[in-house]
Amino acid sequence: MSTPGSERMMSPVVNTYPLSNYTFGTKEPKMEKDTSVADRLARMKVNYMKEGMRMSVEAILLVQEHNHPHILLLQIGNTFCKLPGGRLKPGENEIEGLKRKLSSKLAVNSPSFQPNWQVGECVAIWWRPNFETVMYPYCPPHITKPKECKKLFLVHLSEREYFAVPKNLKLLAVPLFELYDNVQRYGPVISTIPQQLSRFHFNMVR
Amino acid sequence: MSTPGSERMMSPVVNTYPLSNYTFGTKEPKMEKDTSVADRLARMKVNYMKEGMRMSVEAILLVQEHNHPHILLLQIGNTFCKLPGGRLKPGENEIEGLKRKLSSKLAVNSPSFQPNWQVGECVAIWWRPNFETVMYPYCPPHITKPKECKKLFLVHLSEREYFAVPKNLKLLAVPLFELYDNVQRYGPVISTIPQQLSRFHFNMVR
Repeated sequence: MSTPGSERMMSPVVNTYPLSNYTFGTKEPKMEKDTSVADRLARMKVNYMKEGMRMSVEAILLVQEHNHPHILLLQIGNTFCKLPGGRLKPGENEIEGLKRKLSSKLAVNSPSFQPNWQVGECVAIWWRPNFETVMYPYCPPHITKPKECKKLFLVHLSEREYFAVPKNLKLLAVPLFELYDNVQRYGPVISTIPQQLSRFHFNMVR
Repeated sequence: MSTPGSERMMSPVVNTYPLSNYTFGTKEPKMEKDTSVADRLARMKVNYMKEGMRMSVEAILLVQEHNHPHILLLQIGNTFCKLPGGRLKPGENEIEGLKRKLSSKLAVNSPSFQPNWQVGECVAIWWRPNFETVMYPYCPPHITKPKECKKLFLVHLSEREYFAVPKNLKLLAVPLFELYDNVQRYGPVISTIPQQLSRFHFNMVR
């Protein structure tokens, strides 16, 4: 019998460390490039004309509290939350690009004090068929030129790290049970992360 | 730099063949063991007392139509759909148990004419904390004795197969775009399969 894939039978293990293992400082603000959704979609269109399909990468950073996995989310203003990450430069390697984005969003500006970003498994891929906000976890039929492809990666954190959070953002540790089935608050991409992580075994290191 | 997992960078490839490659016959009815949700939960409780946590396994069988992945679902009556699979015997191996269940639900009764069930990646794990219908893609905090653990596996179909469907059931090929965001019709487990499959690359074989 053939055995496709090497994941069979055993759940991949993810070590998660207590939130209190990590230290959070601040750094200068990182402003959003756009002040409205319309601006953002217009900028996307201009970039698409120049560079083709937008490739973006985002990180799922896990910690634990009360024996339950939590995800680190960046909060902008009072309500909007996003995963750390962003757009790749044309031709940029996904892993290197994600590390660059994570350092820009969550690390001090000195190259010698960067967290050990261990980029792991791709857990989801989302597609934007048009210059609109809606994305799908597949490229819809009849769409031959999607406008964006966004990949979510698990990034395995070391036991202890220091993060520097831009002053205009808040970094939140949100439990999986808060994200689950909460599309109203977190949107379709973030609210289904619990399902995408369900195949992993979380080793809660004390 | 460490590289957790072997899935990095490359999406795992899943070959999918046209629905028309497969032949569908019928066989004797397979009746549901329970006639109501209350009966089902009561039977679950009795079995739990005897055997401990229920372990169940279900299969995601993929075909393609119009260049888009479709999933095979068993329809009972006019509305309720489920994945083929079922409960493992106490101590039964997951892979062998899933093959046994698939043969019981979808194959002729002759052991020499069984489809080549290639059980692949585990894509999701769901937990039932109590003797209730609700399940979660994680074991909720403070639940030390979950009542059921259900694993969903990708089962890679060969290029051609013959399926025998129990006369009281219908086998449907449902496109991912129909499942997505359709919790009302398909429930929380099946409606988020598109997200769980998004990390795979579907090789549409003609």
